[in-house]
Amino acid sequence: MNTDNRPLILVSNDDGYEAPGVHELIRRLIPYGEVVAVCPDGPRSGQSMAITVNEPLHVSELPDFMGAKMYKVNGTPVDCIKLAMHVVLRGRRPSLVAAGINHGSNAAINVVYSGTMGAVFEGCAFGIPSVGFSLTDHAHDADFTPCLPFIDRISREVLAHGLPEGMCLNVNIPNCGHVPEKMRVVRACKGNWSDEYKEYTDPHGRKFYWLTGKFENLEPNNRDTDEWCLSHDIVSVVPTLLDRTMPLAEAPSWLALLEEPEE
Amino acid sequence: MNTDNRPLILVSNDDGYEAPGVHELIRRLIPYGEVVAVCPDGPRSGQSMAITVNEPLHVSELPDFMGAKMYKVNGTPVDCIKLAMHVVLRGRRPSLVAAGINHGSNAAINVVYSGTMGAVFEGCAFGIPSVGFSLTDHAHDADFTPCLPFIDRISREVLAHGLPEGMCLNVNIPNCGHVPEKMRVVRACKGNWSDEYKEYTDPHGRKFYWLTGKFENLEPNNRDTDEWCLSHDIVSVVPTLLDRTMPLAEAPSWLALLEEPEE
Repeated sequence: MNTDNRPLILVSNDDGYEAPGVHELIRRLIPYGEVVAVCPDGPRSGQSMAITVNEPLHVSELPDFMGAKMYKVNGTPVDCIKLAMHVVLRGRRPSLVAAGINHGSNAAINVVYSGTMGAVFEGCAFGIPSVGFSLTDHAHDADFTPCLPFIDRISREVLAHGLPEGMCLNVNIPNCGHVPEKMRVVRACKGNWSDEYKEYTDPHGRKFYWLTGKFENLEPNNRDTDEWCLSHDIVSVVPTLLDRTMPLAEAPSWLALLEEPEE
Repeated sequence: MNTDNRPLILVSNDDGYEAPGVHELIRRLIPYGEVVAVCPDGPRSGQSMAITVNEPLHVSELPDFMGAKMYKVNGTPVDCIKLAMHVVLRGRRPSLVAAGINHGSNAAINVVYSGTMGAVFEGCAFGIPSVGFSLTDHAHDADFTPCLPFIDRISREVLAHGLPEGMCLNVNIPNCGHVPEKMRVVRACKGNWSDEYKEYTDPHGRKFYWLTGKFENLEPNNRDTDEWCLSHDIVSVVPTLLDRTMPLAEAPSWLALLEEPEE
């Protein structure tokens, strides 16, 4: 293992250690430090910040990839970060947690379901500057070229500046067939999924359901959102918080009445 | 099915439809409306906002409980809310999503891992006033009596006032052996889990790991946190946001430089 003074970079994802997206990310980060990747042993899309509480977890070393140590875990992306921190890295602290490149967008509300962003939030919970990279293309053989200069630039800047405590970055890159010319710091777009299930009938006449759906952008004309950027071939960078507490000054005033003894 | 004009209340949890906590919650909500419960078919603790994307989901009707319709789903708490909204309720909108009573605390950082709060966030994503109730006792046979007056009071108030868009409530009740005298609106405490894995060796000499850990309160003397309340026999109510975007005005200034063309 490399023991020089280059930054230690921890990589994970939710598409599993065999996904091309994570190989691209590792390849791109190698010049910036010592890279260790701890990834799920298979696809864990939509795992959010799920943790495995009722089953044993295994960490298995894989062959090195481009000089990076690689491990797989039979758990979620959050499990991967926790096991990396407690077991694999044996007390060494990474200077950066980078997750992805996700096969598919994590813009708008997708950030809360994303396993890739789950790994990023967990890195953030450990106090490590953490960034998720996603390409808006679900294909296994997606072309990740549009992502590469932005991985370079953002990783360099985050390694140089760090990130404020409790804040991480959700970076989405449009699959526009070329390297985007622009990048914007924006907020998560308001929107919902609709028509979320396809209904089937099994051979015994029982219904079953498979998650699908259509994203509905509730503010398509607002330029300060990630969805607007992506639909205009612009890379979106959303500063995102681990803590979800509402600032108490913004809470509705009747809530304070709960503190009074009931009449 | 009851078709009068009482409010429709959707109940879920992460401990599964057989957990005593959800039965207590249903029993307590029956006086306030028509209750429909859609719960996982077994324990789903720590599932956060995970969704099931690569497997079919089944919804099975169970015998009514105390006059409430009950269904089980072979998925996560978020799956339960989505299937309730798209399939079980057939277009009817609940006035309240209530999740719990969770067997165990969801205070501090636990809110982000909690499957119970996952159901609450999903209710919030549908624009429905949503509240999670948790008792700080993991026991299957925990005494839920301390929770009951607070479920009454908060549910009544939320049914009367609603909640602002994108905001939900994380309510934790201390297991102090009596009904707490006070309730406070506070923020999630800063803290981390440490020593998170117990290490084992299998019969073949391979190591494996099981999640455990110890919560470390990083601000034990701050009275405006949920952990302080719980350790002082006070019920905590944390107004919590679905959207995790950092207010852009608070983002570090160097981030804006990412928007400039690279030199």
